[in-house]
Amino acid sequence: MKDVKPEKGWKNRVHEIIYEADTPMGKWFDIALFGLIIFSVLLVMLESVKWIDVQYHGVLLTLEWIVTILFTIEYVARIISIKKPLKYVFSFYGLIDFFSTIPLYLSYIFAGSQVLLAIRAFRLLRVFRILKLVRFLGEASQLMKALKASRAKITVFLFTVLIISVILGTLMYWIEGDEAGFTSIPTSIYWTIVTLTTVGYGDIAPITPQGQLIATIIMLLGYGIIAVPTGIVTSELSRQSTAKNDPNHEDFVHINTQVCPTCAKEGHRDDASHCYNCGSKL
Amino acid sequence: MKDVKPEKGWKNRVHEIIYEADTPMGKWFDIALFGLIIFSVLLVMLESVKWIDVQYHGVLLTLEWIVTILFTIEYVARIISIKKPLKYVFSFYGLIDFFSTIPLYLSYIFAGSQVLLAIRAFRLLRVFRILKLVRFLGEASQLMKALKASRAKITVFLFTVLIISVILGTLMYWIEGDEAGFTSIPTSIYWTIVTLTTVGYGDIAPITPQGQLIATIIMLLGYGIIAVPTGIVTSELSRQSTAKNDPNHEDFVHINTQVCPTCAKEGHRDDASHCYNCGSKL
Amino acid sequence: MKDVKPEKGWKNRVHEIIYEADTPMGKWFDIALFGLIIFSVLLVMLESVKWIDVQYHGVLLTLEWIVTILFTIEYVARIISIKKPLKYVFSFYGLIDFFSTIPLYLSYIFAGSQVLLAIRAFRLLRVFRILKLVRFLGEASQLMKALKASRAKITVFLFTVLIISVILGTLMYWIEGDEAGFTSIPTSIYWTIVTLTTVGYGDIAPITPQGQLIATIIMLLGYGIIAVPTGIVTSELSRQSTAKNDPNHEDFVHINTQVCPTCAKEGHRDDASHCYNCGSKL
Amino acid sequence: MKDVKPEKGWKNRVHEIIYEADTPMGKWFDIALFGLIIFSVLLVMLESVKWIDVQYHGVLLTLEWIVTILFTIEYVARIISIKKPLKYVFSFYGLIDFFSTIPLYLSYIFAGSQVLLAIRAFRLLRVFRILKLVRFLGEASQLMKALKASRAKITVFLFTVLIISVILGTLMYWIEGDEAGFTSIPTSIYWTIVTLTTVGYGDIAPITPQGQLIATIIMLLGYGIIAVPTGIVTSELSRQSTAKNDPNHEDFVHINTQVCPTCAKEGHRDDASHCYNCGSKL
Repeated sequence: MKDVKPEKGWKNRVHEIIYEADTPMGKWFDIALFGLIIFSVLLVMLESVKWIDVQYHGVLLTLEWIVTILFTIEYVARIISIKKPLKYVFSFYGLIDFFSTIPLYLSYIFAGSQVLLAIRAFRLLRVFRILKLVRFLGEASQLMKALKASRAKITVFLFTVLIISVILGTLMYWIEGDEAGFTSIPTSIYWTIVTLTTVGYGDIAPITPQGQLIATIIMLLGYGIIAVPTGIVTSELSRQSTAKNDPNHEDFVHINTQVCPTCAKEGHRDDASHCYNCGSKL
Repeated sequence: MKDVKPEKGWKNRVHEIIYEADTPMGKWFDIALFGLIIFSVLLVMLESVKWIDVQYHGVLLTLEWIVTILFTIEYVARIISIKKPLKYVFSFYGLIDFFSTIPLYLSYIFAGSQVLLAIRAFRLLRVFRILKLVRFLGEASQLMKALKASRAKITVFLFTVLIISVILGTLMYWIEGDEAGFTSIPTSIYWTIVTLTTVGYGDIAPITPQGQLIATIIMLLGYGIIAVPTGIVTSELSRQSTAKNDPNHEDFVHINTQVCPTCAKEGHRDDASHCYNCGSKL
Repeated sequence: MKDVKPEKGWKNRVHEIIYEADTPMGKWFDIALFGLIIFSVLLVMLESVKWIDVQYHGVLLTLEWIVTILFTIEYVARIISIKKPLKYVFSFYGLIDFFSTIPLYLSYIFAGSQVLLAIRAFRLLRVFRILKLVRFLGEASQLMKALKASRAKITVFLFTVLIISVILGTLMYWIEGDEAGFTSIPTSIYWTIVTLTTVGYGDIAPITPQGQLIATIIMLLGYGIIAVPTGIVTSELSRQSTAKNDPNHEDFVHINTQVCPTCAKEGHRDDASHCYNCGSKL
Repeated sequence: MKDVKPEKGWKNRVHEIIYEADTPMGKWFDIALFGLIIFSVLLVMLESVKWIDVQYHGVLLTLEWIVTILFTIEYVARIISIKKPLKYVFSFYGLIDFFSTIPLYLSYIFAGSQVLLAIRAFRLLRVFRILKLVRFLGEASQLMKALKASRAKITVFLFTVLIISVILGTLMYWIEGDEAGFTSIPTSIYWTIVTLTTVGYGDIAPITPQGQLIATIIMLLGYGIIAVPTGIVTSELSRQSTAKNDPNHEDFVHINTQVCPTCAKEGHRDDASHCYNCGSKL
């Protein structure tokens, strides 16, 4: 606990356990909760496998109820123990926690509400909280910075890819036609993106020579295009990696644009006080 | 409007609305036009989906007529309001605008002229004009510069890929033969490029052990080759990114769209107070 | 042999042959052993090809026995000739050598123990010992250093990919359903990773328009995501490559930690004799 | 012609036309020859397309004879006009020229000798001679230098990929078995490389949950592994690109090979006027 809290009621103790990761209890709570989240996600997965669902339906439903009740207790405890409950409820994690808890209750009201179970997967993001939170978020934020810095380039890139896909997809639709699987322009655009990203399912594939020729051009284009986002992210990461080089780094000397008052030479070290050229004081 | 225009007839007002992006009317026109372009492209897509075309043929045709008439009005307005209409008509955007407008008229003369509808997709390029044009084009032009600077390398690379594809494709044709889908050398070369670019549809796949061995070599080759364009673009982007770092950098001057009142030259430095061309005060 | 060994018994001579790569005998032993390892791996491969196994079962079994006996002799010799046999037995290579030797013996006790034959492939790692060991390991360790330095970033990246896969996989399961091959959430997650990594088998592929739309988003995401590990490894390798630039390189000035005796400034050229700060002799 | 040749017989004139690219005749000869090579390669392709071969067999055979005779004349002219014919005959291009010429003659002796026609594709490499040879070779040689410099890393990388493929391929063979297409260990290794390189044909695909789990691991591994060659080539290209930076760059101090007249020290700044070593005027 970083800041001293004078009133030490049970709400505070609950708050400490749930929201603080530094206290032993808080650490254990985080790990137990993460275990429960993984368990709940696995449960949703197993329910989707037909033969498991048929054979162990009762067991799975019981376990689902246990998870739901534990999630409900946790959710209520979070609301009670925080000072501004509304802020939590409408926060990103608050909404995820809410929608991870309610599907089973809702399933008695609406059929098919189990789709919401997928939202539980978002709770896995808590892993970053457990695994030395700050450091990992630090690394992540460096990635984020690299991505943000190249946001404009990536937007231009994505628009270009989409426009190319629409143009080439429409072209392939006119060339190939129904037999090869190019049943409509949207399908054809889908195929173009499948090809351009080098995924290549093969459920749709050109069969005419001219279609194969254009497919070849799309592939070589995709080959070149794949270089662009990589180049953008890499050069951004490299720049940051260079920029965060310790200013006191031995191998790295900053040269500024200061001009020597005596000989008018430029290119002195940032911390130089004498001209490298004539030796007069800067 | 940056430069004062003394004669303020309706032609000028139309010109302002259509060609200027800075005035409120011009902005609204650009956004409305882009909406219409997206709508027209979606229309072409929907027409290609069989069941939609069968069920809503009348509606789609009516909408297509509305789009065509609006495009016609816009095209005529563009020609009337510009000083050098021929220059516009035969420019890249002028030709695209023309071919985006005529397909429906032509469809009463030639069957199958609707192929031209695909050209409409090119009009989507206008998006760069709307989304803070200059900045995005700036970013784009940085990508362009990177691509241009590595043009020679990319040409050598593409020729090498093509020659490798022809050689290995011919080899695979002799090894695999018809049963595996390698029905001719062109098809075999198509397969080689599909493999080399790691697309891998699987419509054609080697079945003999020796064919699979060569396929393995092609894949590992492709693995290595994919590194080359990425390396070229990345190192070029890194170099540019390094070059434009420091705001005091000599090689990097911010150029604005200001026009010299005396000699009408564009492209002055942001901090320029005199025209670089004629020396008069800006 | 680097260090002189006074007692020259047969154990020492065996040790020299087996463990030393510098003596002519040691070199020959290494090459012969590597040949035997490749032969043993090829043998396991050939046994798995049905028609070869049916036709040449006797020959293959005899050869397998010869390999097993030679491996046994080698294993025993290694244990005898080393000073701390237990340390070898429980080392990484010791365990691989053991499990590469026993499968044939075990096959008389347990059926199906031939799975262990796969472990032999690990013995191929010895190739690095033969091909100028140190240099190659040096190169490898540079790669290792790059990978280790970016370990945290790669962990964050992998967790993000896994969480995205779980979320999008679950979504696709609800959208596509059984007909398209999305029979359960685990299968659906498997498909998402197949798509995200741009592998794209095509055994499972979306058939509904909304499924294809999400698939398109996954692919474009994968396109961007593939840039991240490349960017991480590249920027790390670039940083290392810059840091270890040739000391005799003309364009590169090495700055050392020497302190000026007069003004106590640091950061002089490696070969400087005068302080850049106060001009006094270093 | 760079060096003066006193004897100007017909052999010399032939030599000039065939081997010199700078004279007008030499240029025309190169372009005509390259056209003929492309034509001969297209001819081989067309012959392989069944319906074309059936319908136009006579025409194709005649054209093939014309190409063969022209190639024969060129080959004989090359041998006659060069001073050391044997050196040419056994050079890389000499052998390619020979094997590109003989297939049709051989087809009357051996059936199936037309496989040699594939060798003609190598003659396409002449394109680099025509398209401003030196510059392109220069670019190519920069790529070559980058590839050579990272040769050791790439070898280690390839061996690692192969060993991983053998190990995981064998594992998948035991897990999946015949139904999924993993009919033997070699096939299984082939599949592993198909997956690791993100090609993913889909002709073989895992169907058991545990097989799909391992496939997922292989894909994520491939995702990471693809970063390594890209990283190696990129960092090498970046390093070369940095080494040849702009001479006016502020952040970059150019050190020249000038020698101090007083203390004979090397390694001064390009624009230095005083020795950094002894302070005397340069």
